Amino acid sequence: MTLSPKPKGKAASGSVVDRMQALVAEDMAAVEDILAARAASPVAVIPDLSGYIVSAGGKRLRPMLTLMAAHAVGKPNHSTHVLAAAVEFIHTATLLHDDVVDESDLRRGKPAAKAIWGEKASILVGDFLFARAFNLLVETRSLAILDRLATASTTIAEGEVRQLAAMSQRDLPTEEYLTIIEAKTGALFEAAAETGALSAGGDAFADAFATYGKNLGLAFQIIDDVLDYGGTTAVIGKSVGDDFRECKITLPVIIAKRRGSDEDRAFWDRVMNPETQVDTDLAHAVHLIRATGAAEATIQEAEAYAALAKAALRTLPESPYREALEDLADFCVSRAF
Amino acid sequence: MTLSPKPKGKAASGSVVDRMQALVAEDMAAVEDILAARAASPVAVIPDLSGYIVSAGGKRLRPMLTLMAAHAVGKPNHSTHVLAAAVEFIHTATLLHDDVVDESDLRRGKPAAKAIWGEKASILVGDFLFARAFNLLVETRSLAILDRLATASTTIAEGEVRQLAAMSQRDLPTEEYLTIIEAKTGALFEAAAETGALSAGGDAFADAFATYGKNLGLAFQIIDDVLDYGGTTAVIGKSVGDDFRECKITLPVIIAKRRGSDEDRAFWDRVMNPETQVDTDLAHAVHLIRATGAAEATIQEAEAYAALAKAALRTLPESPYREALEDLADFCVSRAF
Repeated sequence: MTLSPKPKGKAASGSVVDRMQALVAEDMAAVEDILAARAASPVAVIPDLSGYIVSAGGKRLRPMLTLMAAHAVGKPNHSTHVLAAAVEFIHTATLLHDDVVDESDLRRGKPAAKAIWGEKASILVGDFLFARAFNLLVETRSLAILDRLATASTTIAEGEVRQLAAMSQRDLPTEEYLTIIEAKTGALFEAAAETGALSAGGDAFADAFATYGKNLGLAFQIIDDVLDYGGTTAVIGKSVGDDFRECKITLPVIIAKRRGSDEDRAFWDRVMNPETQVDTDLAHAVHLIRATGAAEATIQEAEAYAALAKAALRTLPESPYREALEDLADFCVSRAF
Repeated sequence: MTLSPKPKGKAASGSVVDRMQALVAEDMAAVEDILAARAASPVAVIPDLSGYIVSAGGKRLRPMLTLMAAHAVGKPNHSTHVLAAAVEFIHTATLLHDDVVDESDLRRGKPAAKAIWGEKASILVGDFLFARAFNLLVETRSLAILDRLATASTTIAEGEVRQLAAMSQRDLPTEEYLTIIEAKTGALFEAAAETGALSAGGDAFADAFATYGKNLGLAFQIIDDVLDYGGTTAVIGKSVGDDFRECKITLPVIIAKRRGSDEDRAFWDRVMNPETQVDTDLAHAVHLIRATGAAEATIQEAEAYAALAKAALRTLPESPYREALEDLADFCVSRAF
């Protein structure tokens, strides 16, 4: 069960992430030190659980955005590093709560923290990391940065609640899907990039980075959602069909249903209900998503956001950082390969 | 099933809370406006759920502390008001998560939010209110206040995780119990009072208010814990026996077990285990807590913290605010009547 759209853009497989990691290696080492030091607590389960998820194979995409934005406009400093760590803690906190709310047992291909430490500990350690993130943000001494991250956190929670409400909606409008993912994923990408620029004195480019981050986040999430119907665990570190089993309505489903026959629509109505879905439905769902061209159309939607992300960087001075961020937008879309 | 220790101190039944409410009525009206305005969200379930819990009969004790501290050292201003609202949002967020973690179905004598909207919505709206609290704190433009509340939030989460770990511990040391409640309850009382003083320029009295708040919080929680074995729903808005049914080990249990016979200790070992507790055990638990003098000893422990709270206010100029805060410490202990 693999999905193989044609490679688009100039991104070579995975290499832009490696390139970015090389560009910010020194800064990321400082961020990792902060993450390790600030996940510490005299309460043993807190560093155990947070260490597990903070080091659970994440690509550090959000703090990398923060560091790259700072480099693209100036020079990262201690504020940039604590900010990047705070961004990762906020992301980690949302993952922990997401796992509880989503009822998923796998996260990045490994058992979710709640499968090991339980749901209660996952909720509370999420709260701890979220609070700790704000301690770190205070260290930036920037009220603008604090406000942006507090607002992003509020927006993320709103997006999660919207998503919860969407579960019981038979026909989710495309616009509502986009509103949800813009809040759930776009908001933190946006704030990570924008505040990265702010932390290095690049106020003039803050809006450009906000636009870049938001659109990159949308492209990233849309591709994540199509990968759930076509990627492999080995590639994306996530079980195929997670969203399907949770009856989470995502863009490939919306398009496949819209384009489908009456019979197809009846299928989607039945399987997007936890009471009536059965194990063998996934294969047919994947078939319909391909046969109707929904997978390709979903990827095209992501490409449009990736293009908007790249366009936002045009006002920036040329640099290896700007170039890598442009390539990252292409890579986000092509990462299924 | 009522507990009637002799009234201590000079507090008349409930009147100090009325007096405080009158002293800060104008400020509290401003705080209520902020709470209502800032719980708003285009996502309907958020204002519904948060409105339910924010207005669920709470006494607004924590924001009242913030306002009283500001009055005792100067004059509350807009920063004080948004700070007080943020303190209440943080408290509300912890209540929502607490209800999920505690598996309790009642909160302040009403159905817990999760019993109406579900656990998932309770987790996510808790996250929303917590993030919104930090938006409000940014409006104080005080990094010191932001840092104190971020630290308090971290400490609360640590306390909750400690409490979770304590559930599986047969003999909880008194010191561990006190560490838990100092984190769970003391930290926010401490930060609420301290930052209230800071918001009104009373930096010289910040430490006094921190000490006052922490010790008041300890007294308050210890009394809450003894009321769980003796108060009535009508008085405390909480079912008697909640902690018992959740097998939460609190000071009255620790003392009753320590002072009990071998048979009593075997009883406590059996009933403080959800697998072996039966419905009829509560009556005998209440009996043992009284017969061993554990209830009285627990109240004495609370009195000691209330005395420390009052002592911390000695350096303050005399005022109706200081006097009411002193009386509040007595009232916290005597509120079972």
